[in-house]
Amino acid sequence: MTPPVAVVGAGHAGRALAGHLALLGAEVVLWNRTPANIAEIVERGGIEMEGEAVGFGKLALVTSDIKEALAEAQLVMVCVPAFGHRDVARLCAPYLRDDHVVVLNPGRTFGALEFIHELRAQQCIARPVVAEAATFIFASRSTGPAQSRVMRIKHAVPVAAIPVDRTPEMMEQLNAWYHQFTPAESTLDTSFGNVGAVVHPVITLLNAARIESTHGRFDFYLDGVSPSVAHVLEAVDRERLAVAQLLGVQVRSLQDWLLSAYRAEGGDLYEAILANEGYRGIQAPPTTHNRYMLEDVPMSMVPMASAGRSFGLTPRAIEAVIDLAGLMHTTNYWSRGRTLATLGLEGLSPAEIEQVAMYGYDVV
Amino acid sequence: MTPPVAVVGAGHAGRALAGHLALLGAEVVLWNRTPANIAEIVERGGIEMEGEAVGFGKLALVTSDIKEALAEAQLVMVCVPAFGHRDVARLCAPYLRDDHVVVLNPGRTFGALEFIHELRAQQCIARPVVAEAATFIFASRSTGPAQSRVMRIKHAVPVAAIPVDRTPEMMEQLNAWYHQFTPAESTLDTSFGNVGAVVHPVITLLNAARIESTHGRFDFYLDGVSPSVAHVLEAVDRERLAVAQLLGVQVRSLQDWLLSAYRAEGGDLYEAILANEGYRGIQAPPTTHNRYMLEDVPMSMVPMASAGRSFGLTPRAIEAVIDLAGLMHTTNYWSRGRTLATLGLEGLSPAEIEQVAMYGYDVV
Repeated sequence: MTPPVAVVGAGHAGRALAGHLALLGAEVVLWNRTPANIAEIVERGGIEMEGEAVGFGKLALVTSDIKEALAEAQLVMVCVPAFGHRDVARLCAPYLRDDHVVVLNPGRTFGALEFIHELRAQQCIARPVVAEAATFIFASRSTGPAQSRVMRIKHAVPVAAIPVDRTPEMMEQLNAWYHQFTPAESTLDTSFGNVGAVVHPVITLLNAARIESTHGRFDFYLDGVSPSVAHVLEAVDRERLAVAQLLGVQVRSLQDWLLSAYRAEGGDLYEAILANEGYRGIQAPPTTHNRYMLEDVPMSMVPMASAGRSFGLTPRAIEAVIDLAGLMHTTNYWSRGRTLATLGLEGLSPAEIEQVAMYGYDVV
Repeated sequence: MTPPVAVVGAGHAGRALAGHLALLGAEVVLWNRTPANIAEIVERGGIEMEGEAVGFGKLALVTSDIKEALAEAQLVMVCVPAFGHRDVARLCAPYLRDDHVVVLNPGRTFGALEFIHELRAQQCIARPVVAEAATFIFASRSTGPAQSRVMRIKHAVPVAAIPVDRTPEMMEQLNAWYHQFTPAESTLDTSFGNVGAVVHPVITLLNAARIESTHGRFDFYLDGVSPSVAHVLEAVDRERLAVAQLLGVQVRSLQDWLLSAYRAEGGDLYEAILANEGYRGIQAPPTTHNRYMLEDVPMSMVPMASAGRSFGLTPRAIEAVIDLAGLMHTTNYWSRGRTLATLGLEGLSPAEIEQVAMYGYDVV
């Protein structure tokens, strides 16, 4: 019998994944820090699923005790926003074992490194696999306190393990449930293949007043991207590619990604976005205080800018977006975000960072 | 008999001013570089006025010959966008006399300094008064090829002369036609009292997609400013005040200005903007390639940022707006804009700049 899967976090993503896994026959333990948010799931004993998989996903255990959640599990699917990764690592640290496979769904930029860095700060002696997925496997939404709808299961989700030589072990755990996960070479690939980092904050920023005055009642991509906005997206995307290149990583441009992921063609980025049927009907968030900003700015843009700056690049477009997002929200995203310093990578060469991203901090 | 008034530039502003002055009884010479744009005015011999002043404003001369425009005139009202000030200075240089009073309507930031700097570059030996108004005296629009509507005549328009000791001479020329002009102490007051520099680019930037997808069919201030946008406006405004302070100038904050100019009260800037009846009904521009960006970014924000940087300030909000505006328009507003270097002020102390702003370059 396969060991239970722990799903950490019961937001939109965690609920969908827990319920879906249960329908697939997994024994699922769902953890959430705040008991109130899972009270209804505890009471019902599971999650009612609709959309791509219909039925009642009965859960083996629903708990706010992380020790209990990790005890029997081997695969640990972390489904919290990236700004929660460090906290989750701290909570998990005492209970992790060498045979755990922790997957961040998704990691945003340097998520797995941050997780491991925190385990070390907590003097965790276990050496679990810590991996990051480039994106979340579903498009899904909670439709009630114990309900979830999976609108779409994505075709391919690259995932990279630290240490990379335990990739086969990780793939075995993941492929027991989903064939969509594909192994990436390094967490630098998943960290920089993060196109959400480009699109979410730029579109939100350049539609800020519209989001706040309409409460998000417009089409986020198809109305929210105009030729000028596309020019800024192009600039931010060029900087993402340039920083990735500094670290020795080749990633697809946003325009190439739209072509390969959605077959969305266009003479330029603006045309490609308009041509993407997958974007049709996606409404803007109802407020600018949204994960598109709260998560992507500090956990994707700040680390990209930090790495770029450290190696002589001046990523002005990314920095301008970070600055203005912070002013909008009267916060300093720089100090809340992941940087080479907070990740313990300052002073390392690009080649050394590449090694850490593949094998963990023990190599340096 | 009063000498003729030369109105330089026949756009929205120049047409309104020329027609209005003619109705007031002035002998008006209207100049425009491109003959095609004044062909209809030449044919009709004047401008049909509506709004605050109704009637046919008969012009003494309509010409594309700057020599002819300046020959008899004493007061020269320059009504071109600020990015045209340098060109106008170059064209005027050979024909200016010591008794000319040139007024930039408005100067934006450092307009009078740029004008004088260019006269010197052209080896102009005359020493006319060169002055800048803080804003244009009307809210007005061209309503046809030889038609103009003055919606509103503003109550008070500060104007500063270089050299400042010729202020009485300048006021006499202006007050012959308008009592609304009031003398400012120095062109630093008019340059930094420029609230358009704050509001226009920020609101345009943070509504870019909406402007382009609706062609400006929304209320620029009342829909275009949301709480997040107001936070960015506050940050940009704080930097404007801080740079002004570095140069020894005290200017009103945007919120104080709204209170004094419009009696618009509010607990914060957002509330004050919403409370401003004067903003009601002002539509957004139909495109982001508009004077709100093309003029205010290089001619107001760049000089403010440049002065701030030179004296140890890091005006990150203003710089982020300049950077993103440039990326949107795939241009470099930094290199198109006024800086201490292009104004010949680099290396001067704040006190020396203050002297130049009052007395011209001869003092250093």
